[in-house]
Amino acid sequence: MHSPRPPRHLLSLQGLGKARIEALLRHAEWMRPHATGGSAMRERLRGRTVINLFFESSTRTRSSFQLAAQRLGADVLNFDAAVSSARKGETFLDTFHNLQAMGADLFVIRVSESGALHDLQSHVMPNVSLVNAGDGRAAHPTQGLLDMLTIRQRKGTDFSALKVLLVGDIKHSRVARSDLHALQALGTGEIRVCAPDNLLPDGTELTGCNIVPRLDDALEDVDVVMMLRLQRERMEEGLVSSLDDYHREFGLNTSRLAKARQDAIVMHPGPMNRGVEITDAVADGAQSVILQQVSNGVAVRMAVLDALVNGQI
Amino acid sequence: MHSPRPPRHLLSLQGLGKARIEALLRHAEWMRPHATGGSAMRERLRGRTVINLFFESSTRTRSSFQLAAQRLGADVLNFDAAVSSARKGETFLDTFHNLQAMGADLFVIRVSESGALHDLQSHVMPNVSLVNAGDGRAAHPTQGLLDMLTIRQRKGTDFSALKVLLVGDIKHSRVARSDLHALQALGTGEIRVCAPDNLLPDGTELTGCNIVPRLDDALEDVDVVMMLRLQRERMEEGLVSSLDDYHREFGLNTSRLAKARQDAIVMHPGPMNRGVEITDAVADGAQSVILQQVSNGVAVRMAVLDALVNGQI
Amino acid sequence: MHSPRPPRHLLSLQGLGKARIEALLRHAEWMRPHATGGSAMRERLRGRTVINLFFESSTRTRSSFQLAAQRLGADVLNFDAAVSSARKGETFLDTFHNLQAMGADLFVIRVSESGALHDLQSHVMPNVSLVNAGDGRAAHPTQGLLDMLTIRQRKGTDFSALKVLLVGDIKHSRVARSDLHALQALGTGEIRVCAPDNLLPDGTELTGCNIVPRLDDALEDVDVVMMLRLQRERMEEGLVSSLDDYHREFGLNTSRLAKARQDAIVMHPGPMNRGVEITDAVADGAQSVILQQVSNGVAVRMAVLDALVNGQI
Repeated sequence: MHSPRPPRHLLSLQGLGKARIEALLRHAEWMRPHATGGSAMRERLRGRTVINLFFESSTRTRSSFQLAAQRLGADVLNFDAAVSSARKGETFLDTFHNLQAMGADLFVIRVSESGALHDLQSHVMPNVSLVNAGDGRAAHPTQGLLDMLTIRQRKGTDFSALKVLLVGDIKHSRVARSDLHALQALGTGEIRVCAPDNLLPDGTELTGCNIVPRLDDALEDVDVVMMLRLQRERMEEGLVSSLDDYHREFGLNTSRLAKARQDAIVMHPGPMNRGVEITDAVADGAQSVILQQVSNGVAVRMAVLDALVNGQI
Repeated sequence: MHSPRPPRHLLSLQGLGKARIEALLRHAEWMRPHATGGSAMRERLRGRTVINLFFESSTRTRSSFQLAAQRLGADVLNFDAAVSSARKGETFLDTFHNLQAMGADLFVIRVSESGALHDLQSHVMPNVSLVNAGDGRAAHPTQGLLDMLTIRQRKGTDFSALKVLLVGDIKHSRVARSDLHALQALGTGEIRVCAPDNLLPDGTELTGCNIVPRLDDALEDVDVVMMLRLQRERMEEGLVSSLDDYHREFGLNTSRLAKARQDAIVMHPGPMNRGVEITDAVADGAQSVILQQVSNGVAVRMAVLDALVNGQI
Repeated sequence: MHSPRPPRHLLSLQGLGKARIEALLRHAEWMRPHATGGSAMRERLRGRTVINLFFESSTRTRSSFQLAAQRLGADVLNFDAAVSSARKGETFLDTFHNLQAMGADLFVIRVSESGALHDLQSHVMPNVSLVNAGDGRAAHPTQGLLDMLTIRQRKGTDFSALKVLLVGDIKHSRVARSDLHALQALGTGEIRVCAPDNLLPDGTELTGCNIVPRLDDALEDVDVVMMLRLQRERMEEGLVSSLDDYHREFGLNTSRLAKARQDAIVMHPGPMNRGVEITDAVADGAQSVILQQVSNGVAVRMAVLDALVNGQI
């Protein structure tokens, strides 16, 4: 009659299951009033240490995790591995082992190699938890959760009634992967995908999704539009001919957005390339929930840190 | 019979008025015993978040604000925008909006564009305050306040009895501008200014000040000498022929200082170029109050953060 | 009948004496259960400020001191002088004076000039303490202490019964100097040293040590092997012909380690150059106590910070 032990790490939303994801979202909703400050949650991680171990710089995501940890009362150590140990030739694993030996309850890790955290699991001491803050193209689970929380707040908890569209560089995007895992787990009515051919993933990753090549067609009647950031390096790699071309074919502007449902919401994980994947009018318009995503990010991270350390989810 | 609502932001000392400036100085004086540490003020910003958002690096000023916030019990997030979002092409405004969405009570902002904080005001949510930690050449109000606090402690509260001299690159200096605003508001007896012609501001900024071209003449009988840092870039711009020439004409040394009142104090906002605008003997001499300025910096910043958040001034 | 006032600073282990070193080690042992987290020690530095002033980047050592200070309840300010004031031309001394004026109880300083902290002592205000976190080649006393703590835990408190071997670049190593000072003070039975001729220090530094040129001979029957990091710059300076050559002559591998006592422990201060001074099999083997050293680092730093501020040792 015991429920299975909750997972100790959050590495991916893949395989997490609907019940677990919904429990985390409810926990985040409960954290929400305390996610912008205050002292009510200070005892939850009192005396605990959260280490933000970033092998790729990302001041925004790191800041969101730092604020989440501080509001739970934890000690926070930011370890910017992009500028330190790597330079001295130390391995990823040695850096991790060293920090772990200094005492940590939870590691928030960003790393450029897809799947690197999966391999790390066998090196983690009991009572230490890992949170994936982005590993290569593979996963960014707290982004997936904050996106689901935002949809829930705007569209209700029944995802089977929703049509959700993802637009842009799915192939290289850990955000897209985590969103897809969560949308599938929550039983989303229809998941559409729109991207240039060479920015679509190979193989079976889009099984169950509708691929719609033209953005005008793809937007038809959707409830949620999730725009992805176009990394400038896609240009250098020759995968995108020019930002202007990309904007013309896959940029979201006001007239295009009119094809979606009138109450459709527009999401973006940030940082935005204004004028490339999204126009100012849409980014700052009434249908944009982009800043609500950011606020939800802190709530979701508080919920995840709390759940992993205190084991209530 | 209600007094006007205290200002929510501190963007400039211009137009702040004598009463408000004196109230902040008295508040800083009251904070002074707690400005080097201790726990007495810990409850004042408990559960509040102070974000140091620096688009220009300045480890000293940022450290002074960080210590002030910590000693008031706040959570502090240092966001070094000089090395993060700018690199990813995100706009100033998007970076600000994002951090604001993560929950902050107070932003301490340094930015290279004069007036940038003024434009930001319309984007600030209710209950969020801004403190200008230096915007281009325009203003550095906490530096102005800490300078006034230092003068007050040494020369008393009646500024009408004082002759104050500013020496150096007034034109490009936000420190000089904030000092001038404060000295004028406090009714300083005489404000003198001494600088190379091409480092004097154009127009009406020096209305009411006496411009004295030769430093030896300018020092005559003054109570306070405020030296300004000579930025090395003035050389590259051809505004200063050489550091040696500058030192010969506008550097403060012991024999020149003898022209001032015997009890005159010497101030400098730091970091100093020793041997350029000031000699070692003066910088480290008995009349120097330069480190007292630094100590007062923490007290003034504690007073400002407390006053803006708790609304008592 | 009064015991001498405990030293206010920890600049070196040289001349500290056996009694003082053992007292610090016992204090660290007492701190050990709280060195990986928890709230039990939070009141010891409550309201105090620890400033990590690093003129050389060292994210690991800085992190160890930061966690130690946080677990004692201190406010921590990390001042990365390698990227700030130096760039603006400010002197070491001005940077220090400024931070001191902002209020600090304890400075943890790393600097590239040997002996720089010694010269700094006359500028330190009463009630402010200095901890040397590494000055050039001269000393790294907390590393020396954590190494002694590790040996004690594994080999007991009677150092006269032990044979300890140091291998590698003794000449340029502050770690080696602090280890030698401590081993001598604790009356170690035999101290052996093994290094290429041009990486041995000149003069009298090794008085009392046995210099054994070949590693295979040196390892014979030792209880403790302390490997040193080979800085890559030794290659550029022509002091080492190649990493392969170095590894062949002075690298520790499993078959060589078999010459030592069967229960010998292997130490390394990190970060390791795997495949150069040490093989993977040894670094990760059963005799390695390298991560125990790292854990002890936090305990030792807590003990030192506490002892200097609260004056109990």
